[in-house]
Amino acid sequence: MRAVTIRDNELVIEEHPDPVPGAGEVLISVRAAGLNGADMLQRRGLYPAPAGSPKDIPGLELAGEVAALGAGAERFAIGDRVMAIVGGGGQAELATVHERQLMPVPGALDWAAAGGLPEVFTTAHDAVFTQAELRPGERLLVHGGAGGVGTAAIQLARAAGAQVTATVRSEELRAQVAELGAEVIAPEGFSDYGPFDVILELVGAPNLAENLQALAGGGRIAVIGVSAGAKGELNLLALMGKRARIHGSTLRARPLEEKALAARLLEREALPLFDSGAVRVPVAETFPLDEAAAAYERFAAGGKLGKIVLTV
Amino acid sequence: MRAVTIRDNELVIEEHPDPVPGAGEVLISVRAAGLNGADMLQRRGLYPAPAGSPKDIPGLELAGEVAALGAGAERFAIGDRVMAIVGGGGQAELATVHERQLMPVPGALDWAAAGGLPEVFTTAHDAVFTQAELRPGERLLVHGGAGGVGTAAIQLARAAGAQVTATVRSEELRAQVAELGAEVIAPEGFSDYGPFDVILELVGAPNLAENLQALAGGGRIAVIGVSAGAKGELNLLALMGKRARIHGSTLRARPLEEKALAARLLEREALPLFDSGAVRVPVAETFPLDEAAAAYERFAAGGKLGKIVLTV
Repeated sequence: MRAVTIRDNELVIEEHPDPVPGAGEVLISVRAAGLNGADMLQRRGLYPAPAGSPKDIPGLELAGEVAALGAGAERFAIGDRVMAIVGGGGQAELATVHERQLMPVPGALDWAAAGGLPEVFTTAHDAVFTQAELRPGERLLVHGGAGGVGTAAIQLARAAGAQVTATVRSEELRAQVAELGAEVIAPEGFSDYGPFDVILELVGAPNLAENLQALAGGGRIAVIGVSAGAKGELNLLALMGKRARIHGSTLRARPLEEKALAARLLEREALPLFDSGAVRVPVAETFPLDEAAAAYERFAAGGKLGKIVLTV
Repeated sequence: MRAVTIRDNELVIEEHPDPVPGAGEVLISVRAAGLNGADMLQRRGLYPAPAGSPKDIPGLELAGEVAALGAGAERFAIGDRVMAIVGGGGQAELATVHERQLMPVPGALDWAAAGGLPEVFTTAHDAVFTQAELRPGERLLVHGGAGGVGTAAIQLARAAGAQVTATVRSEELRAQVAELGAEVIAPEGFSDYGPFDVILELVGAPNLAENLQALAGGGRIAVIGVSAGAKGELNLLALMGKRARIHGSTLRARPLEEKALAARLLEREALPLFDSGAVRVPVAETFPLDEAAAAYERFAAGGKLGKIVLTV
């Protein structure tokens, strides 16, 4: 099979042996695979793939058709449209995935949308609902509302009956984010718009003190990105006074059981929203697998709303 | 009634009008009332009582007999032995408490033990089980294991099937804390004894970085005290890498509903342990109400294991 391959921090397309599905695994004929920030880091050697994933083939998510079943795999049949988060190796013509990590592709979604769904929607759903336990009627603040996880979080929270405010740095993107259902504000002085019950933090430590200030009593902060810095001062007395909590998390390093559980929750609580049209996957641009290098450049350039997706 | 009274940061015994129980409230003839760190702060004018509590009578917990019932109060009968956390006013001959905040006193406990139970055991139970969700078989680290909340947390966690390690600064107290069922260590280099699933933080910001280092994947830190400092650097990337969370909380400022819920949970999950003998209330010394000033001095001097309790 052909696959995007990292060679000396460059992206090339290379032939690899076809993967063979092990017990409980499914062989997927990949049709689309979204790009994510972690791919950019991995390309530069900064974010090695976890054990059990291909070392040199990037790609944290994929959508495609079931091409073969490993021993004991029974959740899906040959030809089914499926999608999943994977530890790596998604940007290839073929990939093997444990059947418990796979989700069915909602009928309303085309391949590009399906290939760009799993990572950001699972991350957003896990952070906002499983960790921060957002409730109907609560107020959510999304830092970085124009990003993939941000746009997913806004839509899921709105569909769950929450009120959403989102900070967006780029003035050009604010109207598009507002269309997703959020009150859109500039990052400066965001605490004037609080208090918020839940804050989804994709930017990092520079927001830490103001986040606590903007938090309602009993509020929760979910930290899933630190692009602007990791270390900041935390006032524990303020944390106690607000009776607040701060979560940190990443999906990639979790054991199979936890990834499968997150996939089941997304399947039950979020996937029906795509068929009803309440939630959609914004796709900024698609590139054929052969043009992966151009796709990565487009991703790194930023200024887009929605996913960059490789199509096979 | 006579009550401990704060006048110009000094403690005196003064006559006050007898309190009258309102709807749903119970009048308690107080038999014992424990001292807590918040009393020391309130005496110095640093921790004003919340709205609805006496401004000048300290005391966050009490035990006594039901002396009269307000309109609609029905959970207890005249003469019942009860105890509770109160917003203030516990160090007096009489006090009114909403019946939903009251708990029955376990038969095995004398008045001094009952008067010193509610605050530290509710705080420990809420932090360790309700917030940090300690599970059987997990490892708990208690910072400040010789304090009132520390000794409560050690015993409750042991009774719930967890393994407990406690830091104790005073060498003289270590053997007594070990008798409660904890592995007792010096505070220096505590992370060598990890990883811990839950850390109960009673000391504050100086431990923050090492706490994160000592935490197991998926671990939780519950911050309920900052005696050694409130502000410290938090590494959000480390928090994400451990998929950890940090809780801050105080009991005192909570609304009645939440205090009542905490009392119900303690009633169901912890009080039976006092009758079985699995858990006890360490009482260091009792003082008559008239000697409140001496009791406060004894509390502030430290170096004790167990509660200082005023008896009426």
